[in-house]
Amino acid sequence: MRFTDVRAASLALIAPLSEEDCQVQSMNDASPAKWHLAHTTWLFETFVLEPYEPGFRPFDADYRMLFNSYYHAIGPQHARPRRGLITRPSLAEVLRYRTEVEARIRRLLEQPDCPPEVARLVWLGVHHEQQHQELMLTDILHLLSCHPCPARAVYAADAPQPALADPAARTDVALEGGLVRIGHAGEDFAYDNETPSHRVWLEPYVLRSQLVSEADWLEFVQDGGYQQVRWWLSAGWDWVQQQGIVAPAYWRQSAYGGWMGFSLRGEVPLSAQAPVVHISLYEAAAYAAWVAHRTGQRWRLPTEAEWEHAVRTRRDALQQVDDAAWQWTQSAYLPYPGFRPWDGPVQEYNGKFMADQMVLRGGSCATPAGHARASYRNFFPGGARWQFSGVRLARDLDA
Amino acid sequence: MRFTDVRAASLALIAPLSEEDCQVQSMNDASPAKWHLAHTTWLFETFVLEPYEPGFRPFDADYRMLFNSYYHAIGPQHARPRRGLITRPSLAEVLRYRTEVEARIRRLLEQPDCPPEVARLVWLGVHHEQQHQELMLTDILHLLSCHPCPARAVYAADAPQPALADPAARTDVALEGGLVRIGHAGEDFAYDNETPSHRVWLEPYVLRSQLVSEADWLEFVQDGGYQQVRWWLSAGWDWVQQQGIVAPAYWRQSAYGGWMGFSLRGEVPLSAQAPVVHISLYEAAAYAAWVAHRTGQRWRLPTEAEWEHAVRTRRDALQQVDDAAWQWTQSAYLPYPGFRPWDGPVQEYNGKFMADQMVLRGGSCATPAGHARASYRNFFPGGARWQFSGVRLARDLDA
Amino acid sequence: MRFTDVRAASLALIAPLSEEDCQVQSMNDASPAKWHLAHTTWLFETFVLEPYEPGFRPFDADYRMLFNSYYHAIGPQHARPRRGLITRPSLAEVLRYRTEVEARIRRLLEQPDCPPEVARLVWLGVHHEQQHQELMLTDILHLLSCHPCPARAVYAADAPQPALADPAARTDVALEGGLVRIGHAGEDFAYDNETPSHRVWLEPYVLRSQLVSEADWLEFVQDGGYQQVRWWLSAGWDWVQQQGIVAPAYWRQSAYGGWMGFSLRGEVPLSAQAPVVHISLYEAAAYAAWVAHRTGQRWRLPTEAEWEHAVRTRRDALQQVDDAAWQWTQSAYLPYPGFRPWDGPVQEYNGKFMADQMVLRGGSCATPAGHARASYRNFFPGGARWQFSGVRLARDLDA
Amino acid sequence: MRFTDVRAASLALIAPLSEEDCQVQSMNDASPAKWHLAHTTWLFETFVLEPYEPGFRPFDADYRMLFNSYYHAIGPQHARPRRGLITRPSLAEVLRYRTEVEARIRRLLEQPDCPPEVARLVWLGVHHEQQHQELMLTDILHLLSCHPCPARAVYAADAPQPALADPAARTDVALEGGLVRIGHAGEDFAYDNETPSHRVWLEPYVLRSQLVSEADWLEFVQDGGYQQVRWWLSAGWDWVQQQGIVAPAYWRQSAYGGWMGFSLRGEVPLSAQAPVVHISLYEAAAYAAWVAHRTGQRWRLPTEAEWEHAVRTRRDALQQVDDAAWQWTQSAYLPYPGFRPWDGPVQEYNGKFMADQMVLRGGSCATPAGHARASYRNFFPGGARWQFSGVRLARDLDA
Repeated sequence: MRFTDVRAASLALIAPLSEEDCQVQSMNDASPAKWHLAHTTWLFETFVLEPYEPGFRPFDADYRMLFNSYYHAIGPQHARPRRGLITRPSLAEVLRYRTEVEARIRRLLEQPDCPPEVARLVWLGVHHEQQHQELMLTDILHLLSCHPCPARAVYAADAPQPALADPAARTDVALEGGLVRIGHAGEDFAYDNETPSHRVWLEPYVLRSQLVSEADWLEFVQDGGYQQVRWWLSAGWDWVQQQGIVAPAYWRQSAYGGWMGFSLRGEVPLSAQAPVVHISLYEAAAYAAWVAHRTGQRWRLPTEAEWEHAVRTRRDALQQVDDAAWQWTQSAYLPYPGFRPWDGPVQEYNGKFMADQMVLRGGSCATPAGHARASYRNFFPGGARWQFSGVRLARDLDA
Repeated sequence: MRFTDVRAASLALIAPLSEEDCQVQSMNDASPAKWHLAHTTWLFETFVLEPYEPGFRPFDADYRMLFNSYYHAIGPQHARPRRGLITRPSLAEVLRYRTEVEARIRRLLEQPDCPPEVARLVWLGVHHEQQHQELMLTDILHLLSCHPCPARAVYAADAPQPALADPAARTDVALEGGLVRIGHAGEDFAYDNETPSHRVWLEPYVLRSQLVSEADWLEFVQDGGYQQVRWWLSAGWDWVQQQGIVAPAYWRQSAYGGWMGFSLRGEVPLSAQAPVVHISLYEAAAYAAWVAHRTGQRWRLPTEAEWEHAVRTRRDALQQVDDAAWQWTQSAYLPYPGFRPWDGPVQEYNGKFMADQMVLRGGSCATPAGHARASYRNFFPGGARWQFSGVRLARDLDA
Repeated sequence: MRFTDVRAASLALIAPLSEEDCQVQSMNDASPAKWHLAHTTWLFETFVLEPYEPGFRPFDADYRMLFNSYYHAIGPQHARPRRGLITRPSLAEVLRYRTEVEARIRRLLEQPDCPPEVARLVWLGVHHEQQHQELMLTDILHLLSCHPCPARAVYAADAPQPALADPAARTDVALEGGLVRIGHAGEDFAYDNETPSHRVWLEPYVLRSQLVSEADWLEFVQDGGYQQVRWWLSAGWDWVQQQGIVAPAYWRQSAYGGWMGFSLRGEVPLSAQAPVVHISLYEAAAYAAWVAHRTGQRWRLPTEAEWEHAVRTRRDALQQVDDAAWQWTQSAYLPYPGFRPWDGPVQEYNGKFMADQMVLRGGSCATPAGHARASYRNFFPGGARWQFSGVRLARDLDA
Repeated sequence: MRFTDVRAASLALIAPLSEEDCQVQSMNDASPAKWHLAHTTWLFETFVLEPYEPGFRPFDADYRMLFNSYYHAIGPQHARPRRGLITRPSLAEVLRYRTEVEARIRRLLEQPDCPPEVARLVWLGVHHEQQHQELMLTDILHLLSCHPCPARAVYAADAPQPALADPAARTDVALEGGLVRIGHAGEDFAYDNETPSHRVWLEPYVLRSQLVSEADWLEFVQDGGYQQVRWWLSAGWDWVQQQGIVAPAYWRQSAYGGWMGFSLRGEVPLSAQAPVVHISLYEAAAYAAWVAHRTGQRWRLPTEAEWEHAVRTRRDALQQVDDAAWQWTQSAYLPYPGFRPWDGPVQEYNGKFMADQMVLRGGSCATPAGHARASYRNFFPGGARWQFSGVRLARDLDA
C-alpha cells in the first residue's frame, strides 16, 4: 500500500542522521528533519483525523500550532525561522506521533463507511509527504554544507546523485508548437495549481535533450561569467553583487586551485556527465545569455508550456527529465486561466504562493520515484539555490 | 516640433519647485527632479551627440558617469541611492546643460546628411523623457509626502489628478477571446518590450468599465481587509505585516477619525468618483479576492493580454484607460515569444528588467498626453506604491 | 581536588537535557551546551596539554578550530553565530573528549617535574570552566524561553533561583569613602582585569543593603516607566523603542492580565522577596531615575569602586551580594591604571573586550559557589539581558 | 557683543555653499546646514523667547517640532534621519527666521527688568551655536566627501585645516599625578557635564607634546595595521571587518598608488606636520597598541583626568591642544561624582547621552575660537569618524 511505503520512506531518510542532525535549522528557508517528520504527520492528523475520525482526540494539543506550516485557516503557527528552536518534543516523541497517527489513519481507511473524501485527503497527504522527502534531503544538504570540516559532513556514501548524461549524445529537439494543451486533466492525482487543462499558443521552438553539465558551467565560470554584468538580468546582477556569488551553491575552490562540488556524498569532483545543480534562476538566465553570445543562436530558458508540451509529445528524445535536476523556466508562477484552488483548508496549499516566484519543471534525484509528472509545477524565488535546480536550454526554431 | 515641446514640458514641471525641492532624494526608488532633468539630457548627449555629432565634445566630462542611470555598456554609474548627494552641479548648471544639448541636437537634425538613426534615437529620447516626466511627478509627490506639515507640502493647486468616473455608469464588458494578437506591430514608435506582435489564446472574460474607486476601497479598509490574512497572497501578507500597511500609500487618518488622501494638491478627501491610486499589486490582489468573496463572482486582476485585447477591440466601452491610474495585471513582466532587445547600448533599456516585476497597463494622470498606447507595458515590483497605480477588475465569463 | 569537582559540575548541568537541547543555539550571544562542554575542554587541551604534555597529539585535529572561541593567537575560529550548526561531533564524542583530556591533565599534573606554569594554567582553566557553567545556565534559559509552550520548557524543578531577601529588613548602608584601594592583590587567583590594586578617591555614599525586587519593579512597569522617555538615557530609549521592550526579559503577561516570570523552573509568579533579574543597564538606569524622582533622593547605580569598597568593608551589612543577581554599575569596563594583560595566548582573555561594555559586580544564583570575589569584574553591553542581572541602588551621602 | 558675532559667524560658514549644499543630509549622524541654522535659532526662540518674551508669538508654529533636535520636554521632534527631507521652509525663510529671532533676543536683553536667567540662557545659546558651527563644518565635509568628483567638492580654498606641528620638536611630558582636581569650578560658562570639580587620584604618567601625525599613521597603514587583529580591541576588529576599513575616513588611494586626504579644501597630500584626523577610537587604540609593541614602551590613550590635569598644569609644554584635532581618551562618557544636570528643559542637553560614548578632549581646527577650555568634554561613540578626531599618546611613567 502506497501510504505505508511512503511513510516508511521518510524514516529511511533519517537513518544516517543523529538526533542533533535532525534538530538544527540552518537557514530560514530550510526546516529541521524532525520538523518535516512531524509536519507531514500533522497534515494527516489535522486534515484527515480531526474532521473524520469518530471521537477524535489530538495526540498532543500543542502540535496543532507547533507543526502547522502556513495554514491560517487552521490557526496560529510557530514562526518558520524558529523551527530549529523546538527541542521539545524530542525526535523519539515525534516518531511515536508518527506511529500512532499512521495506525489511526489505517483504521479509518478500513472502516466500511469511510467517506471518499478521506481517501482523497490521504492521497494528498501521501503526495505532500513526498514533497517533504525531497525537502528533507535539500535541507540536510544545506545544514551539512555549513560544517567547516567537509569530511565530517557526509550524509551517506550512496546518497542520491543527479542522473548523468553522455555529452556525446546531446541533441537539439525541434517542436512545431501551435495551439497546444497543457495542464492536468483526468482522474489521476495532481495539485490544484496544475489545473485546468487549457490551450496555449506556441511558436516553433527547440529544446536541448540534456541539461547543462558541470563541465559546461565551469567554462562559464572560467570565462569570468560571474564578473561580467552584460550576461545578467538587473535583479540577478544585484543579487550576485550583494551576495558575493562566484559559482553555484556548494561549489568550493579546492586547495589545488580547481573547483569541487559538495553533495550528500561529501565533496565530489566536477564532471562532464553531471548536470550543474544548485543554481538560481538568475544564474540560469545569465548562462543562457552567455551561450547565446558564443554560439550566435539565441538560447534562452524554455517557458513552462514549451517544456510541458515537449515532455508530453517527445519524451523519447529527452534525457534527465525528472531524475537529475529541476529545470528553471522563464515562466512566473501564476494561476492558469480558470484556476480554482481546492476547497477547505487545503485552499492555502498552492494558490497563495502565486507571486514573486518562478516555475521549475521536471524533477530531481531527490524527488521520490513516481512523484513527478508532466504537468507538475515546482516554484521558487529567483535567488533560491538550495534545491537541485539546473538548466535545460531552449530557443526559437529560427533563432 | 515634438522634441522642443517635450523638452519644454520637463521644465514646466519644476516651475512650482525650489532648488531644494529639486535636490532631494526621498527614497532609493525615487530620484531628485534635478537628476531627472540632467539624465534625460544625458541620454541625448550620450546616445545621439557622442556617436553622431561631428567633433563631439562633452558638455562636462563628469556627467557621463554622474547621470548614467544603468547603462553598463556606457561605463560606470553613480549609485542610484546616492543621487540626492550630488549637490553639484547646481540646478542652474543643469539647466544650461539642457539648453546646450537641445541646441546641438537641433543642429544635428537639421544637417542635410543626418542619418536616419539620429532621428530614430531622438525619437526614443523624447519618449524616454516623457517617461521621466511621469517619474518626476511621482518622485516629487513622494518627497512632499514625507513632510510632517502637509499644508507646506503642496506641489500645485492645479496639479494633475486621476480622471474621475461616475459610479452609476459602471458596467461589465464581456469579451469572447479566442486566438488573438497582442503586442506592437507597424512603424509607430514602441519600446522593444512590446514586440513582437504575437498570438495568444484567451478564454472568454469580463472586464470592468471603470477602475476601483476610493469609496470602494474604503469599504475594504473598514471591513478589516488589511487585518485578515485570508484575502492575501503569502508574499503580500508578509509585506503587510513587515511594513505595517493599513491603507493605500498617502492615505492618512484625519484628526476627525476618517481617512484623507495626500496628493500633488495636498490633502484631499476621498471620493466615490476618484480611482484608488498608490496601491501595490499585493493590495490589488487582496482586494479582488475580497470582492470575489462578497459577490460570489470570481473577480481577479486581468492578464495583460486580456487588458490589451479589450482596449484594442472595445475601447469605447472602457473608461479611465490611460488618464487615471496604471492598472496592475496578473502578468509577470517577461519577454514576449520571439522578443529581441534593441541593438546597441539601448539594449539595456528594457530587457534586463524582465525579472521579479509585474506588468501594469494603461496610463495615469501623470502620463504625458500621447505617451500611452494599447501595447504599452509598464512594470514594477509587487510592493511598489509610489506610482499612480490602481485596479481594473476582471473575471472569467462564466465565473 | 577542585579540577575534578568542577569538571563534574559541568556534566551535572546537562543531566536534565536531551542531545537536542544541548545542540541548539538560540541567539548569537548564546552558545549550545555541547559547545560549552567542548570549549572548556579545548582550553585545557590547547593551553596546557599542547605546550606541556610530552609527545602531545590532539584528540581531534579539527577541534582546534571548531572550539576556539576567540583566540586569534591560536588560529582560525568557527564563527560564533554558527556554533549551533556543528551537529558533528555528537554530544557523545564531546563527552569522550572531556574524559580523555581530563585524564591527560591529571597525568601531567602528577608528573614529578611538572612545571608550576601548568598548575597555574589548570587553575585558570578551572575558573574559566566555572564561568562557562554560569553561561550554560543562562544560555539554556534563553533557549527554553523561546519555546512557545512554557510547560514543555522547564529545565529542572530544583534549578537555581536568585537568593531572596525580606523587604522588611532593607536598609541603607552609609560609607565614608576617601582615598581607598580597589582591585586584586595577593597570591589568590584573579583575572588580569582585576589588577593592579590601586587607589581611588571616593566621596561619601550610601548603598542599599538589598537588590531591587520584582515587586519594586512591577510598580515601575505599572507606573508606565517603559513608556515615559524622561527616565531613560537616550541610548536606552532608542533601545526600548526599537526592540519594543515593556518589561524585563522573560516577563510575560499572563492570561489573567498580570505578569509572570519565566525561569529555569518554568513560569513562576513575581515576588516581593525575589530580586528583579534579566534587566539591561538601560533599564537599571531608568529605574534609578524613576526612584530618584519619587523619593526626592538622587538614587543612581553605584560605581564599581563604590561597590567593591563597600563589599570589602561592610560585607556584614549587605545582602544578596553574590547569590542573587549580578549588579549593574555605572562604570564602563576599562583598564585599571597600570593594567597589564597576561602574557601568552591568554592575553586575549579579558583585555581586548575593554570597549563598549559596562561592569557588573557580585555574582548570581548561577555562579558556581566559590567563584565570585570582591574584585571580580563581570561585563556586558548595556542592552544585554540574558544574564542574571539586577540592581543595587546607590546615592551620594548628601543627595 | 558676543551674541551678534557668533550669530554672524554661522552665516559666514554657508557663504561658499549653494541652497542645494545646505539642504542635503548625507548620513543619519549629520544634519543639513540649513537645519543647523534653524535649530540654533530654535533654541533661542524656544528656551528664551517663549518663556520670557512678553506676548510671545512663534515665528512659525511648525518650527517648534521641525527644529527640535532631541528635547522631549519640549514635545515631538522631526526624526533625525529625515532632516534632509525638509525642503520647506527654504533657506531664505530660515534666514528670515534668524534675523527676526535675533532682533527679538536683543530687544529682550535690552529691557531694564530683564531677568538674569535670560542672559544665562542666551549665553548657553551662544555656546550651543558654536558647537553647531563645528558640526556644520564636519557635516558639510561629510557631504562633500560623498561626491564622486573631488574637484567639484571643495568647500573653500582657505577652509580651516588642523594646526601643524614640527615633528623635530616632539617631546614627552612627564607628570607626577597624585590627588588632583579636575572638572569645572567658578563663574565662567561651562556645561553641566563638566561639573562638579572633584578629586581624582592619578599615578605618574607621560603625555606626548604633539598629536600623532599623518606620516606616523601612514607607517601603521603600510605595516598592515588594519589587517592584523592583534592590535585591535575586539569591538574594533568587528568594526574594521564589517565596514571594510583600511585607512582613516577620507583617505583615498590616489591613481598613483599612494594615499591622499580629503578635506574642506579638497584633496590634499599627507604630511608629517599634520595630525591624523577622522579616526575612530578603535583605530586610536589599535595604533597605540602597535606603537607600544614597536617601541617597547606601553603607550596608550590618556584618561580624561590625565589629559585635563596636564593641560591645567603643563599647558606650556603641549602643542595642538585645541586647534588641531579632538583627542580620544580611554575614558567613557559618564557622570562625574556628584553630577547634577541643569534644571528645566536643558536638563536633556548632556546627561541623557552618558552611555555608550567615549570622551574626547581638546578642540579642533573647526572649533570656534574661545569655545574650548580645559574641562570641556566632547563625546562620540567609538566608531565615529566624521569629526576632526585624532590621538595624543600617553603612558605610565614607568611603562
